[in-house]
This record gives sequence, structure tokens and C-alpha cells, in this order.
Amino acid sequence: LKQPLGYRYATSYAGIRKVRKDDLTLIISDPPASAAAMFTTNRVQAAPVRLARKHLSESGGVVRAVLVNAGNANCATRTGDRVAAASCRALAKELGVRIETVIPASTGVIGVELDAGLLVNSLPALVEKLREDAFDAAAQAIMTTDLVPKTAFAETSGVRVAGMTKGSGMIHPNMATTLAFVMTDAGIAPPRLKVILKRAVERSFHRLSVDGDTSTNDMVLLLANGASGIAPRAKSLHAYEEAVGAVLEDLAKQIARDGEGAKKLITIDVEGARSNDDAARIARAIANSPLVKTAIAGSDPNWGRILSAAGYSGVIFEPSKTDVYLQGTKVCRGGLAAPITEDVLKQKLDSPECWIRFVIRGGGTGEARFYTCDLTKGYIDINASYRT
Amino acid sequence: LKQPLGYRYATSYAGIRKVRKDDLTLIISDPPASAAAMFTTNRVQAAPVRLARKHLSESGGVVRAVLVNAGNANCATRTGDRVAAASCRALAKELGVRIETVIPASTGVIGVELDAGLLVNSLPALVEKLREDAFDAAAQAIMTTDLVPKTAFAETSGVRVAGMTKGSGMIHPNMATTLAFVMTDAGIAPPRLKVILKRAVERSFHRLSVDGDTSTNDMVLLLANGASGIAPRAKSLHAYEEAVGAVLEDLAKQIARDGEGAKKLITIDVEGARSNDDAARIARAIANSPLVKTAIAGSDPNWGRILSAAGYSGVIFEPSKTDVYLQGTKVCRGGLAAPITEDVLKQKLDSPECWIRFVIRGGGTGEARFYTCDLTKGYIDINASYRT
Repeated sequence: LKQPLGYRYATSYAGIRKVRKDDLTLIISDPPASAAAMFTTNRVQAAPVRLARKHLSESGGVVRAVLVNAGNANCATRTGDRVAAASCRALAKELGVRIETVIPASTGVIGVELDAGLLVNSLPALVEKLREDAFDAAAQAIMTTDLVPKTAFAETSGVRVAGMTKGSGMIHPNMATTLAFVMTDAGIAPPRLKVILKRAVERSFHRLSVDGDTSTNDMVLLLANGASGIAPRAKSLHAYEEAVGAVLEDLAKQIARDGEGAKKLITIDVEGARSNDDAARIARAIANSPLVKTAIAGSDPNWGRILSAAGYSGVIFEPSKTDVYLQGTKVCRGGLAAPITEDVLKQKLDSPECWIRFVIRGGGTGEARFYTCDLTKGYIDINASYRT
Repeated sequence: LKQPLGYRYATSYAGIRKVRKDDLTLIISDPPASAAAMFTTNRVQAAPVRLARKHLSESGGVVRAVLVNAGNANCATRTGDRVAAASCRALAKELGVRIETVIPASTGVIGVELDAGLLVNSLPALVEKLREDAFDAAAQAIMTTDLVPKTAFAETSGVRVAGMTKGSGMIHPNMATTLAFVMTDAGIAPPRLKVILKRAVERSFHRLSVDGDTSTNDMVLLLANGASGIAPRAKSLHAYEEAVGAVLEDLAKQIARDGEGAKKLITIDVEGARSNDDAARIARAIANSPLVKTAIAGSDPNWGRILSAAGYSGVIFEPSKTDVYLQGTKVCRGGLAAPITEDVLKQKLDSPECWIRFVIRGGGTGEARFYTCDLTKGYIDINASYRT
């Protein structure tokens, strides 16, 4: 798969992180790109989130550059707005573009002042380093507690999609900042792009998290710069939307898999609810249950915890018509224990991919899929000392 | 403080738990006691919960005996209803009381058949052992993952209150079964008792948990058998209600303190919200945030996580008018970092009791207090292998 045309990337160490590891990332689109973004719904919003919203609105959804720093969220600080504005202004000047086409993004600790000088002084050398083949380095430099960089690619009818994300699936996945940047070289107007992004997020990042359980800095940005010369329509537009959705879904799964301390990706399918919405509520309750997540960590086929989590989801269903499957094996039939060979099932659960299937018989056609990860001691290690 | 009059207790090992430790508890009231109960709101309800509800309704709120087993929840099993009914029937016969005055309660693993014979065969010897001074043994025998038995007592105007509970505060506290039994020797009619219990639970167990995040077996039972000869009215009724509330609050705090793997009790006070309900929503979001709970475990004054949790609580508030205190020290003033001596504060946070105070200035008069515990590796140890 080839990279989308018309984008260049650069990274450097600006001294924001304590460890010497690139912490500043620049993504530029040589042709002005159409842009659509979704931001955190947290009541507390970081300065770069507020400024990114403003810029997108002022530019009418046109983006030339994205400047991302890791190591500091630039949130809940005295100088946050000024720092975000100063770095965008300096970058706009350096690139010779309008400031409202520059999107800032930050991730890291909250409540610690970010020194604008660190960013601004790094820009000339950063712009100098811009290259078409530095996509992977960029995916590395935006990481915080991530163990691995996360990228996904697609190509459809001559149009290319390349996505990168950072974030670690957690107990409530979106409490840690999620940043995702998806570059495409299709030609698509901003209003259409917005619809495509919303649907793609619905089947990906929103299936990883409790809606509303967001960090102060979350942002998903989709760019379409038309550098392929192709403006997808009808069937090919549909294929483009599918490609963007698949890339975001792949990225969301990678976040769950790279959950803080996680050893296992857990996929949860709920079927037979009265509506998709009901199915999603049940799936979310199971996905967020620390008791379910620790049971999976221990390869314990404890379906009682799954049934109990569904029971407090707020959705009305008939436990006596409910079946639960682990790794495809029926462990609960009509709300009661199904005969299983525990040793065999335990062994199956030792896999890095676990699958919980929750089926309400005769309930309806509502279904939903959620992604989460198991809960291990590693999570505690990472989070009891993240700040210091 | 003396025990309430007219109650007797007995415990024995019926072979339900794998480890040889008393797992069967009998509480009887010699005079028929008025009773009020609150049960789990989980959609999946254990057989003893369903039968207890039915008995209370049939008896008009009169109780003679409570039979509790630990080690098996008698939930989501083929024979659950029959087992619960058989044990109540056998006990009623043994004691010579009406079956609807016998309340069953169970706690332990879900989905494993409970052998009625183990309970029924233990009853004659259990009844034989009934003693007034076996209250503490009863509080021991109802435990599951609890590290310590939990009891609380009060005395007011010649009336005595003695409560026991089991349950371990967790990430979502009520996902593990909470059982609480509060014996009093006041003379109070069931309808009044119901109101008193509801208010007492509101300020105690409901402040420990996400409403609706309940296990399949939760039950809080309040008895008033009149053995003191005193029927409190007006002022003394108010004092009785206060005593019951204080006992339940004390028990709820003990559950948080004995959280699975927990080293610290965390008290969360929210002030200045637009309503008590808004304050409770913010407090609950903070109490349930695994990021906050792990920070406290690590004595990390990471107030950004507290602000962020409040931010996704769904409550509208102005971050720039919000102050956060840890152990009484202001760490966030108007949404920004307040100057602190980090080493000193870290040392203060090493205490077994941590206090988070979240104040919205000029917001309103709404306030709420919640209890939770820190999140440590011990939690994972306990829950990754609870079943097996």
C-alpha cells in the first residue's frame, strides 16, 4: 500500500518529555486539505482543542498543517491558550500559510505549564526536515504510554488512506487521550467529509469507549487533499467511506490491544437486543466491567460476571433466554451454566484475542460490537506513577 | 454498647465454601420483628433475593429468621428457586415459625449449583447453637473476599442498633455482593421502618456505589423487634433514624476501606454544585475513575485526573471557578495548578485515609459525599482468580 500523495511529515525532540524521545510532530498537506474533526465532549477542554475547533470553523474546514506535541496536554494551565496560539502563529509564518489552517494537538500530563519557546524554537528545523516517508516516525513521536505505534492503511479506486493514532485502551478507554490523524488523497468537500468521519468514528472509537468518558484532549482528524486527482462519487465514494471506516476500526482495535498493562484484546458481540442502542448499552457494560476484564486476564470462564454486568446495564432483557459464548464455546445457556470442559476453555482463553458473544434469543435484531482489553497489574504500574 | 435485645445468632460450616470456614449463618429474632429491606436493582436477580421479596410481601414485613450462606450466590442455576425454598421451609419447620417470616440470603460464585442438602442438613445443629453473644461470629461467617468482619453499633434513648455487613469496595463498588443486616430492639411498624431504611441507605450504601451497578444478590435488611419495650416517637424516633443512618454509614465506609486490594479509604466531598444531584454525579465520576484511584494509590497529587473525571460526569460547571483540595491542601485553584510543596503533599497522601474536596465557587449549594478506595495490584490478584 502506498502513502497518500501530497503529505509530508517531520518529528523532533523539543524537550517537552523528560525522556529524550521525539515529542514534536508536524504533518503538512501540500495542497490545502479538506478537513473534518471530532473532539472530546469533556467539560474540561484543553487549549489546543479549543483552538483547533476555532481554526476549523474560521477556515471553513481547510487544513495545511497539524502540530502535535506529546509529554504535556497543555490543559488547565494559566498560559494554555497563549501557548497554543503562539505555536500555531509561528508555524503559519514559517510555512507561509494562514494561521487558521494550522491545527494544534497535545497529549500528556494535565496542569503543568507548557513552555511555548520549546515548540516555537523547534519549528525552523522541524520544517526543514519534512519528508514524504516520515509517516512512521510521526506515528512514533505522538505516543505517550503506548507500547507500540499504531498505523493502518487502505487503498481504494486510486485513493489512499493512511491513519495513525495514539492512546492506550484502559478501564474506561477514553479517559486517556486519544489522538488520531487520517490522511487521504481523495478530493472531497468538508461537509461530506464530516458525515464520513462521524459514521467511521461511530463504528470504531465510539465502540472502544463509554460515550462521554473522554479525556480533555481527544481529537480525531480526517484530511482529504485531493492530491490523487480523484474525487470519489457514488460507488467509489462509498468505497472511500468504507476504507476510512476500516482504517479507524483497525486503529481502535490496536488501542484496545495496546491497553495499559493489557495482554489481550477482547471483542464483545451482543446480538438479539431490541435495538442496536440496547445492544450497545449491554456491550458497553460488559466492556467496562473490571470484574469481567480481570476474569479474562486470568483466563477464567466466569460468565456469571458477564451476565451480571449486562444485568445492570439498564437494558431490559430476559436472563432465561440469554446465551453467553467465550471463544465460540457456549458457557451459559438460557441464563444457566452450560456443560463445558473447563481446562480446554481455559487454554483457549490464554489467547491474545478473546471473544465474548452475548445472545438474547427471540429478543430482537439489535446488535453491537465493542472492543476492550483485559485488566492486569501492569495497568496499576503505569497509572500509579504516570505523572511523576 | 450493648447488643439489641431479643436476637440470637449461630454459625456453622456446611461445606459450601472450599476452605473450612463457617459458611452458614442464622439470625433469629425471638419476638417477631418488623422488617424493611432494599434489594439489588440488577436485571439478573438471585433466587434468594426473589424469595426474600416474596416472603416480606406475604408476611407484611414480619421476620423471625434470616439464613445466610457464603460461598455460593445461588444465582443463575437450574435449581436456585427450589434450593432457596427448601432451606427456608426446613428452617421454618425447625423453628416452628411460618415460612414467610424466614429470609434467605446468599453470596459467592454465580452459576454453580448449590446443594440444598448441605444447608438443610446443617439446620438442626445450627438452631441448637443459637446464642445471644454470637453476633461477631455471624459477622465473620458472612464474609467472602472481605479481609475483616464489619460491624457497627449505636444506642439511643434505650434502643440499641447493631449492624453487620460483608462486601469489598471495588472499582464499581456494588458489583461485588453487599449484604447488610441491621438489628434493632425498637418497636416500629414496617411502613415507617421502610422510610427510615431508604433514607439511611441513601446516605451510606448509595454513596459507595454507582446507582444501578449492583450485583445479583445485594440486600440490606433492617429489623426492629420491639424487645426494648420502647416505641420511639417524635424526637426519639428522629434519634433512632439518625442512629440507623450512622451505623449504615459506618458500615459503608468499612466496605470502602476493605476494598479488594485497597490500602486507602478515599472520601470525596463535592460542594457548590447547582443541586445535590449534580454534586453526587460529580462525586460518583471521581469515585469511579480508575485513573484517580490509581493516582491515590501512588500518593500522586494528580488533580488533573480529578478535574477530567468531573468534566465527563455530564454535569455542567465552570472549570475556571473550580478548586480541588487533597488532604485539605489546595492543589488546583480556578482550574489551574496551585503552588504546592509536592514532597510534603505526597507524604500526606501516604495516609490510609485520603480526602478529595472539589469546590465549585459561586455555583450553588449542592453538595455530596462519596466513599471509595484506591486501586492497587491486590485488586487484580483477588479478581483474576476468584472463581477457581
